[in-house]
Amino acid sequence: MTDIAEESLEPRCAVDPYGFVADQLALVEQRLAECTRSKESELTRIASHLIGGGGKRIRPVITLLAFKAFHGHRVNDVVDIATAMELIHAATLLHDDIIDGAEFRRGKESAYKRYGLTRTLVTGDFLFIKAFEFAGKFDEQVVQWTADACTSLTEGEILQGSFNRNRTVTAHDYLEIVERKTASLFQTGAKLGAYIADAPCQQVEVAANFGLNLGIAFQMMDDVLDVVGRRDLLGKSTGMDLRDGNPSLPIVLSLLDGHQAVTQVFQSREPTENDIQRALDAMGNGTVIERARDFARKYALKACRDIDTLPESVERDALLGLARLLTDRDR
Amino acid sequence: MTDIAEESLEPRCAVDPYGFVADQLALVEQRLAECTRSKESELTRIASHLIGGGGKRIRPVITLLAFKAFHGHRVNDVVDIATAMELIHAATLLHDDIIDGAEFRRGKESAYKRYGLTRTLVTGDFLFIKAFEFAGKFDEQVVQWTADACTSLTEGEILQGSFNRNRTVTAHDYLEIVERKTASLFQTGAKLGAYIADAPCQQVEVAANFGLNLGIAFQMMDDVLDVVGRRDLLGKSTGMDLRDGNPSLPIVLSLLDGHQAVTQVFQSREPTENDIQRALDAMGNGTVIERARDFARKYALKACRDIDTLPESVERDALLGLARLLTDRDR
Repeated sequence: MTDIAEESLEPRCAVDPYGFVADQLALVEQRLAECTRSKESELTRIASHLIGGGGKRIRPVITLLAFKAFHGHRVNDVVDIATAMELIHAATLLHDDIIDGAEFRRGKESAYKRYGLTRTLVTGDFLFIKAFEFAGKFDEQVVQWTADACTSLTEGEILQGSFNRNRTVTAHDYLEIVERKTASLFQTGAKLGAYIADAPCQQVEVAANFGLNLGIAFQMMDDVLDVVGRRDLLGKSTGMDLRDGNPSLPIVLSLLDGHQAVTQVFQSREPTENDIQRALDAMGNGTVIERARDFARKYALKACRDIDTLPESVERDALLGLARLLTDRDR
Repeated sequence: MTDIAEESLEPRCAVDPYGFVADQLALVEQRLAECTRSKESELTRIASHLIGGGGKRIRPVITLLAFKAFHGHRVNDVVDIATAMELIHAATLLHDDIIDGAEFRRGKESAYKRYGLTRTLVTGDFLFIKAFEFAGKFDEQVVQWTADACTSLTEGEILQGSFNRNRTVTAHDYLEIVERKTASLFQTGAKLGAYIADAPCQQVEVAANFGLNLGIAFQMMDDVLDVVGRRDLLGKSTGMDLRDGNPSLPIVLSLLDGHQAVTQVFQSREPTENDIQRALDAMGNGTVIERARDFARKYALKACRDIDTLPESVERDALLGLARLLTDRDR
């Protein structure tokens, strides 16, 4: 599996996806900064703490790349949509940090830790509302797809919650959580980029599939990095999934392998740091990480195949470049 | 003040506002039930726990009444908007209950108490999203007004938080909190009802003002009932504002009077039940409740005057009937 993935991803990825949409991404940044200004300085501060504090902006980049791949002209519109995608993502991060009681995010104290539950929760709502202000300007189809993606996010969160510290979770459950909780927004972002570019319906679906599979690959890599990533690059501790009892891919694979130590720590309500470290080491030294990486590459490859039908172009190569970048990352 | 209010509200209120929009309200109920069905049964259950568990549906009623007052024809559209208003309200209730750690809501265990933080938070997001799904179908103006109302709600929540247990709160601060946290949604609901009825711009503003002032009156009465209401009718304990440190109107008036006992309990992080009961008795036996009621009536009267310019009609009387009902209520 790895070989195929390497082979297919490698040669066509000379285009830097971020550089390719740099101008439009700068407009997204501008809009993000503008729209998070509120009469209440606290809201502005907390929103900026998260949004101004970095982040990879993958979702807007996917939207912008899909738009370019289909030679869109309505730049202003796609920038609005890309901004909405990042706002939705940011809103869910704030709410997720409350749910997980997370102390760190993007290399610094989480908003939840610094500003407390009330203000973080309300700022999350505020960002959701701003996202809808952007998306709501468009036709019913855009609104519906955006709302559907958000609904998926909430359903994914609930589904994930039902498998919290729950050893009965299957690979199928895992995929369903990931599709809803992460990939749905990638999928919708790519779909909307193509749609705003006035791509034919069939092509919009091609973009959607690309986004979906890339989103799955991305989350799988994220799960891998939670085990073997470097804290300084991640901006947060490793082992968060074990600590929070979230069924990540390496954990699910370990459970399926019947790995005792990992299973115990995963089920434990208050695992010690020692327990967590030992489970991380066990996963790092076993085969689950390599298998998880293979799965990620498999989905990235699937994503690339989705857009294989498009004519060869620098725009298509930029999309492939993104797939490569996301599965080959160390943070 | 009281006399004028009584005089002006009394004679014209023979029309039962709920009866007047019963048919459309039934459609709202149907839509609420439909749209809160999710693939995740937990989301459906929690949404139904709150929405199916009663509530006065004041916001949809205002929207429907404003629509009728301007002889609207697009019933399907106004039902969508009215549904969105209730969904937004429900979303904020779920999030507010988390913020306040509320144990009771609408006479039973709060969703937060029964289902915990994660699921309640996510269900709140889910309801917000559903609201935007309804509102997003309409033109940009509707989306903008709806988003503005929601932004106001979040800003009001933050503003209220900054005056939590804070004795420096002024009457002006109080009004600003109430306008944003409660009245903005009443205002927008009435405005949208008139707008969807294709009322002329000036009349849409008349409806908006009616909603704004009625919303203020409603919240003032809510604040009064938190002191003197009957638990069995309220569906929750009295004294919640004191317990949570929220500056309600009777509390703000007591602070301005320099009332020592109330000030102390309001500022205290963990007041005893005894302290709270004594402060409630002090407010109940003093003049603050009557003065707060007078303020509520004043705003209700203002609301009625806003629509005095409309030709006499049963539709107008139904709006007046609602103003009457909300300031004369015991729950």
